[in-house]
Amino acid sequence: MPDPPPDFQNWTCPLPLRDYPKIVMGHGGGGKLSAELVEHLFLPAFRNDALAVLGDATVLPAAAGRLAFSTDSFVVRPLFFPGGSIGHLAVNGTVNDLAMAGARPLYLSAGFILEEGLEIAALSRVVDDMAAAARLAGVQIVTGDTKVVERGHGDGLYINTAGVGVLPEGLNIGPGRAQPGDAVLLSGPIGDHGMAIMSVREGLSFESTIVSDCAPLHELASLAIDVGGDALHVMRDPTRGGITASLHEIARSSKTGVLVEEATLPVRPEVRAACEILGLDPMGVANEGKMLAFVTAHKADAVLAAWRAHPLGANAARIGTVTTGHPGMLLAKTVIGARRVVPLPIGENLPRIC
Amino acid sequence: MPDPPPDFQNWTCPLPLRDYPKIVMGHGGGGKLSAELVEHLFLPAFRNDALAVLGDATVLPAAAGRLAFSTDSFVVRPLFFPGGSIGHLAVNGTVNDLAMAGARPLYLSAGFILEEGLEIAALSRVVDDMAAAARLAGVQIVTGDTKVVERGHGDGLYINTAGVGVLPEGLNIGPGRAQPGDAVLLSGPIGDHGMAIMSVREGLSFESTIVSDCAPLHELASLAIDVGGDALHVMRDPTRGGITASLHEIARSSKTGVLVEEATLPVRPEVRAACEILGLDPMGVANEGKMLAFVTAHKADAVLAAWRAHPLGANAARIGTVTTGHPGMLLAKTVIGARRVVPLPIGENLPRIC
Repeated sequence: MPDPPPDFQNWTCPLPLRDYPKIVMGHGGGGKLSAELVEHLFLPAFRNDALAVLGDATVLPAAAGRLAFSTDSFVVRPLFFPGGSIGHLAVNGTVNDLAMAGARPLYLSAGFILEEGLEIAALSRVVDDMAAAARLAGVQIVTGDTKVVERGHGDGLYINTAGVGVLPEGLNIGPGRAQPGDAVLLSGPIGDHGMAIMSVREGLSFESTIVSDCAPLHELASLAIDVGGDALHVMRDPTRGGITASLHEIARSSKTGVLVEEATLPVRPEVRAACEILGLDPMGVANEGKMLAFVTAHKADAVLAAWRAHPLGANAARIGTVTTGHPGMLLAKTVIGARRVVPLPIGENLPRIC
Repeated sequence: MPDPPPDFQNWTCPLPLRDYPKIVMGHGGGGKLSAELVEHLFLPAFRNDALAVLGDATVLPAAAGRLAFSTDSFVVRPLFFPGGSIGHLAVNGTVNDLAMAGARPLYLSAGFILEEGLEIAALSRVVDDMAAAARLAGVQIVTGDTKVVERGHGDGLYINTAGVGVLPEGLNIGPGRAQPGDAVLLSGPIGDHGMAIMSVREGLSFESTIVSDCAPLHELASLAIDVGGDALHVMRDPTRGGITASLHEIARSSKTGVLVEEATLPVRPEVRAACEILGLDPMGVANEGKMLAFVTAHKADAVLAAWRAHPLGANAARIGTVTTGHPGMLLAKTVIGARRVVPLPIGENLPRIC
């Protein structure tokens, strides 16, 4: 058996999986190899009381209150990138979808579609990243599934996570609740995740490496709920399609206009430079650790102050306003004071970003 | 634009998706094409109150009691087969995992990984199958996600579903609860699903077509719970790896032996013939609409009678017994009276069966 590549010297997977350095079809067959993958790779990483029962479904304690339920699949390419991996994304993506609904994320499922030939050491590293991200976000991965597809019918691995969380009583937020006069708040610089992926993929190099912002947003969401109270109307993490796609969806759902002041948008210089080289608008580039909040104007400063006191919100800014004019549309006030309509792109600037 | 293939003449998808007869990368980009796929394809099929809110996470009403939570990914090849499609499987697979935990299945998520070039008409047909299966099983598909991967990195489409259900109070079942003396009950003939897939894939033809048994098992599970009461110890749907894999897992979890009487095993003649041609043991072939129940012997006949009165359990049988000897092992009494150890296969007899 060849030595594992240097990146993977420290993987935690114990014997007997080392007999199979790569995924074979049998790892998805429900036989001994499947069982070994569960016992020697998934269980040690994700260990918790619910998972260890190993039934097909997991039994969770009774939850008081309304539940939030969400799912996301992750097909990012490459699997590892500056600032994270598909494992971090898979946990934080679903944690953040729950958090944006106002829920406290509690439990995740994990479904793996593995391509024959995937290094088990790479899978182990992804699974360790998922476990670390779950600990950081305070969630448990309680149920899972693994399938294997033939070489040439996948791309290393795809991950689906679904998540369950509980909602505080009385909370009433959603994309349709944005109201004219609301301040649009953003928790930090945009475009980091998308440009981190693109710079690796396209081999771009800058003076400093662009690092993904992949992070769990449940604490920033809690701050917005606690400080914003009834004044909080919408929360959203602007992932695929960037803040452009998120703000469009909110404008359309709430039948209001959204006006962004471009001069107030936080964008790191290296991200701006990369966007210029590739001809991209940073507003349309994906984020994985940023959130938008729509709050009545009188609460805007209080929410911003709370965010800025949190490490993930240090560069939070007020970036725009909800208007009665232009319902369903996104407008931007440019740095020279002109207004432009920001269209929703037809398709995809950056494929397989998450 | 070419005419759709005859199979797909009746697909329900309205305009404007017909402008794009095939999936393009942009359908996964979070822009207009993504939004059209959701609005014109997923929403009309799955329509329900929770889904229509269109946030990233869905808010569910408060559920009284413990929850069951489960996930499965579906990579079956081909997508359509006698008796069903990947859409039926994706709903019933997760419904059944929840039902086997004793839960009433309530809500599903659906995550799609689409390969560039997939016919939108085929996707529409799969989605319609999912909607029909969900109606039949009494569950709602309340949240979803779509990703698109480049041609050559998928195989048409892969689906992940996760599910949430509620558990009756006081129910205490699980693979570790099997007890010596328990009767092993099976709800009907084995091997139908696996051999339906294989006969299509290998081009085998028999006098009668082998049809997948894909079906929701929540009603049979309810009957086992209601009639079995405290005497019900384990429920399991023998999918990948067939009853061999399921019985092995139960024997190992409960540290008991399981003895199957081969003469009592219901197997359709055409399935037996196909297994003989391919050199397969029907006990190791996948099912998608059958369940095993372990009950104290005195309740066995009552559960069997209840099952036989249900259309999905007409051919239910008692197939074996739990023993104190041979803990962790599966044994079979052959038709000539000898006993053999039934090994857990290392890997995969039938790849991508579900």
